Amino acid sequence: MPLAADQKSAIEAQRATSAETRRATVAALEDILYHAHPVLDHGFVRVIDYMGDDGAIVQAARVSYGRGTRKVSEDEGLIRYLMRHRHTTPFEMCEIKYHVKLPIFVARQWIRHRMANVNEYSARYSILDREFYLPAPEHLAAQSASNRQGRGEILDGGEAAMVLEMLREDAARCHDHYLAMLNESEDGARDPARLGLARELARMNLTLNTYTQWYWKTDLHNLLHFLSLRADAHAQYEIRAYAEVMLKTVEAWVPMAARAFRDYRLGAVTFSAPMLAALRRILAGEQVEQPGSGLSKREWGEFVAMIGR
Amino acid sequence: MPLAADQKSAIEAQRATSAETRRATVAALEDILYHAHPVLDHGFVRVIDYMGDDGAIVQAARVSYGRGTRKVSEDEGLIRYLMRHRHTTPFEMCEIKYHVKLPIFVARQWIRHRMANVNEYSARYSILDREFYLPAPEHLAAQSASNRQGRGEILDGGEAAMVLEMLREDAARCHDHYLAMLNESEDGARDPARLGLARELARMNLTLNTYTQWYWKTDLHNLLHFLSLRADAHAQYEIRAYAEVMLKTVEAWVPMAARAFRDYRLGAVTFSAPMLAALRRILAGEQVEQPGSGLSKREWGEFVAMIGR
Amino acid sequence: MPLAADQKSAIEAQRATSAETRRATVAALEDILYHAHPVLDHGFVRVIDYMGDDGAIVQAARVSYGRGTRKVSEDEGLIRYLMRHRHTTPFEMCEIKYHVKLPIFVARQWIRHRMANVNEYSARYSILDREFYLPAPEHLAAQSASNRQGRGEILDGGEAAMVLEMLREDAARCHDHYLAMLNESEDGARDPARLGLARELARMNLTLNTYTQWYWKTDLHNLLHFLSLRADAHAQYEIRAYAEVMLKTVEAWVPMAARAFRDYRLGAVTFSAPMLAALRRILAGEQVEQPGSGLSKREWGEFVAMIGR
Amino acid sequence: MPLAADQKSAIEAQRATSAETRRATVAALEDILYHAHPVLDHGFVRVIDYMGDDGAIVQAARVSYGRGTRKVSEDEGLIRYLMRHRHTTPFEMCEIKYHVKLPIFVARQWIRHRMANVNEYSARYSILDREFYLPAPEHLAAQSASNRQGRGEILDGGEAAMVLEMLREDAARCHDHYLAMLNESEDGARDPARLGLARELARMNLTLNTYTQWYWKTDLHNLLHFLSLRADAHAQYEIRAYAEVMLKTVEAWVPMAARAFRDYRLGAVTFSAPMLAALRRILAGEQVEQPGSGLSKREWGEFVAMIGR
Repeated sequence: MPLAADQKSAIEAQRATSAETRRATVAALEDILYHAHPVLDHGFVRVIDYMGDDGAIVQAARVSYGRGTRKVSEDEGLIRYLMRHRHTTPFEMCEIKYHVKLPIFVARQWIRHRMANVNEYSARYSILDREFYLPAPEHLAAQSASNRQGRGEILDGGEAAMVLEMLREDAARCHDHYLAMLNESEDGARDPARLGLARELARMNLTLNTYTQWYWKTDLHNLLHFLSLRADAHAQYEIRAYAEVMLKTVEAWVPMAARAFRDYRLGAVTFSAPMLAALRRILAGEQVEQPGSGLSKREWGEFVAMIGR
Repeated sequence: MPLAADQKSAIEAQRATSAETRRATVAALEDILYHAHPVLDHGFVRVIDYMGDDGAIVQAARVSYGRGTRKVSEDEGLIRYLMRHRHTTPFEMCEIKYHVKLPIFVARQWIRHRMANVNEYSARYSILDREFYLPAPEHLAAQSASNRQGRGEILDGGEAAMVLEMLREDAARCHDHYLAMLNESEDGARDPARLGLARELARMNLTLNTYTQWYWKTDLHNLLHFLSLRADAHAQYEIRAYAEVMLKTVEAWVPMAARAFRDYRLGAVTFSAPMLAALRRILAGEQVEQPGSGLSKREWGEFVAMIGR
Repeated sequence: MPLAADQKSAIEAQRATSAETRRATVAALEDILYHAHPVLDHGFVRVIDYMGDDGAIVQAARVSYGRGTRKVSEDEGLIRYLMRHRHTTPFEMCEIKYHVKLPIFVARQWIRHRMANVNEYSARYSILDREFYLPAPEHLAAQSASNRQGRGEILDGGEAAMVLEMLREDAARCHDHYLAMLNESEDGARDPARLGLARELARMNLTLNTYTQWYWKTDLHNLLHFLSLRADAHAQYEIRAYAEVMLKTVEAWVPMAARAFRDYRLGAVTFSAPMLAALRRILAGEQVEQPGSGLSKREWGEFVAMIGR
Repeated sequence: MPLAADQKSAIEAQRATSAETRRATVAALEDILYHAHPVLDHGFVRVIDYMGDDGAIVQAARVSYGRGTRKVSEDEGLIRYLMRHRHTTPFEMCEIKYHVKLPIFVARQWIRHRMANVNEYSARYSILDREFYLPAPEHLAAQSASNRQGRGEILDGGEAAMVLEMLREDAARCHDHYLAMLNESEDGARDPARLGLARELARMNLTLNTYTQWYWKTDLHNLLHFLSLRADAHAQYEIRAYAEVMLKTVEAWVPMAARAFRDYRLGAVTFSAPMLAALRRILAGEQVEQPGSGLSKREWGEFVAMIGR
């Protein structure tokens, strides 16, 4: 349960307020504004502000004086053209801001995306809650045998139980000791004989599955780039869980851009020059095998997977 | 007169439309949304979208669940603290988008600010209007004698008239020839015997005072950085004219941040370590002159100007 | 002829100096260091500094303590893997700095690439030389009939001559008047009765084909992105001429990365999800036409071109 | 002891190799190139590559053809002028690359500086060593009473011992369990009955004082900005320890820029508009107290500290 009662009521209060605006407004996104979409066991994603809509992309591409729309079908055609040909700047004209609660090890992957604005909850200034990520059993997987950066088989019950117990106990003990070093306790009592360690130091005792939170704001182009990497099958499951929820918010916000993104980015494949040469030989009726294809074994494997053979 | 009739009516149509939103909304900025503020002889600045308000800065600094506001006075105190101590990231949480019409030589200075999103009117794709900047006589100044990058005395009537005639005639002739190369004319007639030069080539014949236009979007932190450099007395007058209009839109949008910006950035001065040492000696009652101050003549001059002696 | 005698001798002096270094050094790039490669009629590209080599990419990917190299073949395999899977950060670990002389209209396209460091020759501070770009006859093309952003047929002799005369005369007259406004002349004489217009103002009278110059520095990842857009057939010829010379300097500098770039980026093609579906149907022996392919006419045309049918 | 024997010999091998280069070379930086400067208990900073020197700053500011140097004293004067007036782009023309070993909680602060290139050791791909930061007793401080983000008094022996024991035991146990989950052991033995958890998951059990390492590359302007924040007294001690070592490498590399940085940035103070008004009244002989100064109590306190009263 990611939200406390006072947090819920703060969110509800904000959802209950509205005002008139002359800005582009998207009803489907207004519907879910401020709402906390649960992710993993204690995390969430909330859209807390946005600027622009599908029309704003078109408007920027045309540098127009008014709304930029002629016909809806023309707008969608233009957006698809821009996406297909990687004319990326009009997509930068839409902006979105999220409030995200996430485990620190996920935050460390996420922050590598530099073209964004971030304000993280400060553990120099405040105390972190006793919340840490424990994977569901179906996500406790072994190291992949074929991919040094991936997961393979699901662990069996005994091994999974051992892992979960270690994760739970270590995170709990580390957080208990964090509070003890701070000379804080659940009931607010402090030992008057002790000073308590500075928060900026005590936090180093926490484990990497401890939850943090931040405000994260970026433009649509950079968001789609983030999603193309993090909603991808090669991304670690935990960050992909966030990316998938965010992709749904993009669909509510800019449905035309989202469709173009699925067609020309998420669902697209790139053939290298040697792959293209091999493909053309196949299409010309030639029998092509890996030896003689100009592709390494690894590339041949990727090629065969792409063409679905 | 920067706007044609159809542009005016497109703007009016957009101003006439409004919708309900749950987002933070600023009435004073809504009042001027889409409005074209004139700058120079044919230019303008229009705010065409925005995200966030003073409250959004506070909210981000606190990573809060709701509106982030406790009391207005606390909000302003926090914003001033953040500005004074250069905690810049909460200011990145507000975003604004402008539509600007400006001479190309101003655009060339402006674009040096990289932390922004830009869509410029494409002269590969479209034809540029016959509009070019001609300075008002009071802005026709001589090269500064003391500053290799600045202006000095205003030119007298005869020299000013000579300059204006050259500027006007050269810009007009270059634009006439631009249309001629394109095989375009005011009345739409084309010479059927000629192909017309490609637009991407013909544009090279235009002078640097020709007007272009763009959509320009940035966050409040980067906007304030832009304004601190471009609303400054050392900035070239022509870009400063834009910066001053934009500063007024910032005052309508985020009045607390704008006041803090005036106090801690625009009106602030920085003393170097040697200047600070000299200042402390003066405050201690010592008689300090440039020789023996540890400051070069140039720095001493700047120092004396700053302390108002 | 892009270089004056004193410029040539400054370059020669720099080429004649050398020192010992422990840094990664690339002999093929040292050979051309500081050399001015001519581009267009008065422009050039000079590599004036660099950091890293192919080994530095490998070293960064492995975060290693030493040189990072095991075997040359392993290094190339890793670089190809990184390029193919868009693991871009190791390519950011190499840096290069160019000195470029280029027409202003080309500079305006180029500067849109924000992830770079730039110092441009200042026309607020100094006077621009009387040099402007005049296209060779074979580059004087008409507007494309099919592409609103491109060129079509070459102009015939009469039309080309008319265009060239306009370009030459307008640029020359504008530069003459620029000097006149400045109260400067070729022989250094000034009219004592006139103040001369400030340089920051006079420059607005120049045409967009006037040459400027800058130092431009970026990392290998961003450089390859620049080249993928600007060495492409859709780029305007004039910027492509620069990109092609730069691509050769990349081949001298990081030959493995350059080969991978040609295979996986320059020579690669991307199939959208609907294109991939159509391709698989064709490979399965089905007869597929545009109607029923799920592709628009425009996309079908692009698809057919890619598969070489 | 931060380095293993094979790491030391890899570094020595690299230090023993040298080559001729035409590039700008800095003897004082070559002397320490690749050398591991120890920081904290297990960390280090190594300069592993660089581009440019003080002369490169001057050269870029002048966009010159050759070395850019006239006289050393002129170069230093220009660099000081550029620093004083925040003409930052010439400083971007120098680039440096570090290899850093640092605790994860320090890495989390550091990575907030976005204008840099980073390759971090991957714990999805490899196993992290059993090394974690344990503060020296003199750095175990209590939370500051006056500053919610700072440290106050040093903990006494008993409390310090308690804290250190918790930190040491929790980090050790978490790392032991990390290996256990991975089904790895010091002697390489694996339990054949278990699959072992994926590395990307097991890492979440580590504490935030575990050491990681990365390659970090940035330009001189952004490095100085980093140092102005992180070598400052308000920075957390642990990141300041790194910043101070890096500042020494900057002094070896670009001594003129480093001196200007100390005078105009590190040792400089900024007076807000109200502070400047109060200062001028004091200099005019007026008796000024906080009430009536136009400054809040907090600002008055900062003002008094700056002027040394």
